[in-house]
Amino acid sequence: MGDLVGQAVEGTLYYLPYPEFERARGLDVEPEQRAGIFADMCRLNALYMIACAGSGHIGSSFSSLDIVSWLLLEEMNDDDVYFSSKGHDAPGFYAALIGTGRLDFALTHRLRRIDGLPGHPDVGTPGIVTNTGSLGMGVSKAKGMILANRLLGRSGRVFVMTGDGELQEGQFWESLVSAVNFDLHELVVVIDHNKLQSDTFVKNVSDLGDLLAKLEAFGWCVARCDGHDIPALARALSALETDPRPKVIIADTVKGRGVSFMEHTALDSDVAMYRFHSGAPDAGAYRKAAQELIDRLEQRIAAVGAPSLEFETVVREAPLPVAAEQQRLVAAYSRALIEQADRHPNLVALDADLILDTGLIPFREKHPGRLVECGIAEQDMVSMAGGMALNGLMPIVHSFACFLSARPNEQIYNNATEETRILYVGSLAGVVPGGPGHSHQAVRDISTLAAVPGMTLVEPSCEAEVGMLVDWCVNEAPGSSYLRLVSLPWNVPFNLPEDYRPVPGRGVCVHPGRDVAIIAYGPVLLSEAVNAARRLADEKGPSVRVINLPWLNQVDTEWLRGELAGCQKVFCLDNHYADGGQADMILSALAVGKGIPPDMQFVRVGIESIPPSGSVAEVLRACGLDADSLVSRVRQGT
Amino acid sequence: MGDLVGQAVEGTLYYLPYPEFERARGLDVEPEQRAGIFADMCRLNALYMIACAGSGHIGSSFSSLDIVSWLLLEEMNDDDVYFSSKGHDAPGFYAALIGTGRLDFALTHRLRRIDGLPGHPDVGTPGIVTNTGSLGMGVSKAKGMILANRLLGRSGRVFVMTGDGELQEGQFWESLVSAVNFDLHELVVVIDHNKLQSDTFVKNVSDLGDLLAKLEAFGWCVARCDGHDIPALARALSALETDPRPKVIIADTVKGRGVSFMEHTALDSDVAMYRFHSGAPDAGAYRKAAQELIDRLEQRIAAVGAPSLEFETVVREAPLPVAAEQQRLVAAYSRALIEQADRHPNLVALDADLILDTGLIPFREKHPGRLVECGIAEQDMVSMAGGMALNGLMPIVHSFACFLSARPNEQIYNNATEETRILYVGSLAGVVPGGPGHSHQAVRDISTLAAVPGMTLVEPSCEAEVGMLVDWCVNEAPGSSYLRLVSLPWNVPFNLPEDYRPVPGRGVCVHPGRDVAIIAYGPVLLSEAVNAARRLADEKGPSVRVINLPWLNQVDTEWLRGELAGCQKVFCLDNHYADGGQADMILSALAVGKGIPPDMQFVRVGIESIPPSGSVAEVLRACGLDADSLVSRVRQGT
Repeated sequence: MGDLVGQAVEGTLYYLPYPEFERARGLDVEPEQRAGIFADMCRLNALYMIACAGSGHIGSSFSSLDIVSWLLLEEMNDDDVYFSSKGHDAPGFYAALIGTGRLDFALTHRLRRIDGLPGHPDVGTPGIVTNTGSLGMGVSKAKGMILANRLLGRSGRVFVMTGDGELQEGQFWESLVSAVNFDLHELVVVIDHNKLQSDTFVKNVSDLGDLLAKLEAFGWCVARCDGHDIPALARALSALETDPRPKVIIADTVKGRGVSFMEHTALDSDVAMYRFHSGAPDAGAYRKAAQELIDRLEQRIAAVGAPSLEFETVVREAPLPVAAEQQRLVAAYSRALIEQADRHPNLVALDADLILDTGLIPFREKHPGRLVECGIAEQDMVSMAGGMALNGLMPIVHSFACFLSARPNEQIYNNATEETRILYVGSLAGVVPGGPGHSHQAVRDISTLAAVPGMTLVEPSCEAEVGMLVDWCVNEAPGSSYLRLVSLPWNVPFNLPEDYRPVPGRGVCVHPGRDVAIIAYGPVLLSEAVNAARRLADEKGPSVRVINLPWLNQVDTEWLRGELAGCQKVFCLDNHYADGGQADMILSALAVGKGIPPDMQFVRVGIESIPPSGSVAEVLRACGLDADSLVSRVRQGT
Repeated sequence: MGDLVGQAVEGTLYYLPYPEFERARGLDVEPEQRAGIFADMCRLNALYMIACAGSGHIGSSFSSLDIVSWLLLEEMNDDDVYFSSKGHDAPGFYAALIGTGRLDFALTHRLRRIDGLPGHPDVGTPGIVTNTGSLGMGVSKAKGMILANRLLGRSGRVFVMTGDGELQEGQFWESLVSAVNFDLHELVVVIDHNKLQSDTFVKNVSDLGDLLAKLEAFGWCVARCDGHDIPALARALSALETDPRPKVIIADTVKGRGVSFMEHTALDSDVAMYRFHSGAPDAGAYRKAAQELIDRLEQRIAAVGAPSLEFETVVREAPLPVAAEQQRLVAAYSRALIEQADRHPNLVALDADLILDTGLIPFREKHPGRLVECGIAEQDMVSMAGGMALNGLMPIVHSFACFLSARPNEQIYNNATEETRILYVGSLAGVVPGGPGHSHQAVRDISTLAAVPGMTLVEPSCEAEVGMLVDWCVNEAPGSSYLRLVSLPWNVPFNLPEDYRPVPGRGVCVHPGRDVAIIAYGPVLLSEAVNAARRLADEKGPSVRVINLPWLNQVDTEWLRGELAGCQKVFCLDNHYADGGQADMILSALAVGKGIPPDMQFVRVGIESIPPSGSVAEVLRACGLDADSLVSRVRQGT
């Protein structure tokens, strides 16, 4: 194909169609060689899928694909199942499922799109046996499957892929114990030991120590091999086969394997950040990567004397231009945190392997001694913060909201019963971005934290409000707080009044209107609401007032009554399940106060069922939270 | 003292007063011998405290006391701290704190009483540095304390006691990792390896395997000794002292050590249930135990040539007679579960080391192959249930409600996103019994589970309703369910109508009345409400209607409007924090329906702050949920 990629129209993306996979699977060569070619074909298609989607995990997909290909093509029998516990290697696995005919080829074009392939595995997809993406659950799930098989008189092995960063989760170690006590010989775990986790090297985040010794001490049958040396992997699997214990293979792999500059071994230092964990490559990186994969595939195919591969192409639509005024709440948080840290020498930040996504890199640069990197160990992190608070520090605990509010939920409560002060910061809050799917969409956090005594829950609506609320949480909150942070850059079509300052339980009108009120919080909901209000105004529809209430678990009902005066209809929006969100709190507070004003009707608009994985627009629409849906609901009055 | 105990008035309890502890601490003997005598004195007083309280953990208190005594008397410097991670060894630790003068002696008489000593440690008690009782958090807490010390330029070691059953919790292993990576040499963990956990032998519940090898593989400095051989313990501590790593001592101990028939080594088989894990001894066992401890103390004191000890006594008030009609919901649950299991061969029960307390022993006897004992590993248990449900079983998952709803909260959500059917049964639900304190009082579970999609939350009010609701959850629920179960036997002063059957979102009137309605659920709330209604009727106060609504996260608002007809005032009760309980759900549902009836006023009555540890009556009163408080509130109308 020569320099085909370099000469193509800008935005051209390459993939291999299904017949080429069929042909590759039929090549008359050694099975190990065939699997290697198949894996590279999957790499090209996974890269394509991620480029189309605009996000996805290249590094893990590539590190795991030699293993996955061997398992699917040669190792597994009909009654065996395979799944990935880490789940973010999904694009690679999807490519392999598609390449083996287990999944419809058309889905290649639908990664992270609604009715397509979710960002993390979901049982709605053929070939996916369990939902993953929340780390550390895989071995437990597999054990349950095997115990069920035994009780129902069925056989079959369960192969589970785990990450190495994932092994920092306590549940992994918790789950090893009974696998041995129950003699679960049907269980084969393969650790994709690619040495890197989300941010950087595992050894720098939270070193696993002597992994082989640990696994052996837990009583498992342990083997180790090069996870890209397929013959070695095949031998390791074969050697384990008759062992009566549960089995684990430490497969030493390279993150980003298959594209030279995406391989972690190409990093120029072991403290560098790895760029290809998640997100899509830029156009230049895509072209280089595709060219390298295509070149190698052509060489491999030629080397076995087969006719050359037929690649297909699509030209990617140019991404929408990023509005200059997009607000980045995480960046605003970074600034606010440093400001507080400069004032408070006892302030420390704790992170669970999301230093980039939670905005902590500037903090680390300014106060390196005050960042505690905990690894993917949220329970440990939260309880450590508890110990720090008891001994005089002001800990600020960071993770994605979906994990932070749920995994260490009991630990947060335990800390709360000590009546210390801790700030929990949950980023990636809410239903968008929708690409990662339900494991990462934080739409239960208000509910799971609402009854933690003394805890204040707040969500800023724009960059300006971030700093004010961080200041309030650090300096004024009577107890602990939870700062709920939308991570997606957002085009916010309103400004807070110049003199606005946070007052617990009170908010502020961000768009005037006479007939209908919308109460909401955060940049996504409020922006959609203001856009809906403007559209309705343009269309001579009802006049809509939009009220920002950043306090998620308290409301000053006197103030709210005043704000709602004159409105017959009030919509309470939740970027959260409708059950247990802000709306329930508001309505209950109004009811037990002076009662709900008799001439006022209330409507809850929140998430009513498990949200889909998809683009931002698709997911907001599906959940009825986009401006169009709000316009319809206001017009219908329900 | 001879046979003093045997000849004493029935109900006589023995303890040693503070001056005797002062004298013991001053004995001119080897420190190891002195600590041994002190430990036995603490055993007598811990036994006294538990007998007074009517509940408490003898086995762990006794197994840990030689270690605790040595640490407090000889090992710890002023800047060192000690705490127990398992926390249920509290009576022994309190006795030692009191015996060393760190805690007021008068508290000896106030175990598990309000304003006394909580059932599990709380920082409100002098000498207690962190709240424990939720297992597995201790090492993490200690790491946070040490990191805080370092940042603030302070020194001092942190000694943490853990159980051995506790090591089944993933957080323990999660927490070991960074202790090594952070070089936390100040951390000394002592495992009270008494070989038994709540129900029986650790090896039969979930065998720990080669514990020493595991801890060494995690990179800790590990030692092992007989935890009752104080000189050996002292040598082990001394040998570790200069090691730069975090340290752990496996202290082999005997559960119930110090009273021959309470020692686990006295069990006649290793499948027997151990009787002295929690709860108080009966009168006969108390007398025998006290006599044995007193005899040995007198011998030990005589052997060192000191004047004999002066014991003090109190005569315990006879416990209130148990009303014959007390209802036992857990026993009713046992029967209902077996009935369902007989009908459904794919039904399996999962347990997390609470087989006795969750009512699973009859099930195990009937269907031994269908009970999966998971150990204290709730996350693993819930994810295993997820795997089982995916593969065709109907799993029923058991633990205490406080743990089940919080520790594996993310795992429950992950299962829910698979849209399988699982029944979660949380016993020990609600604020009473109050003795164990906030780690065990499940008053956040409605909130933490309310937004799990497809999940139905129910709470039966009496034995008769248990079977109906279990039947509904197993056979009719559209998705997964959570059965919230009060464990305390309760005198239920109402009957359900003969023809009553559960209908989702609807309940039933259990006491007629005209003026005021009380909506509640569960035996505790409804009984207090009915008793309040009767008292008000006797006193010619407002006529109170009491409505049982067993559905915690859904209500049929049409039905409810009908039930409330004619009442101007409605009290919504929650055996839960007021925030996020049933009341919020009801009020929100009414508000978004036809609106709150304008002539009706609503009052939420739930838990407003961290509930105290205390007797049932004390705790209900403190939370305003007892009949007396309800009478007052109905009279006041707020």
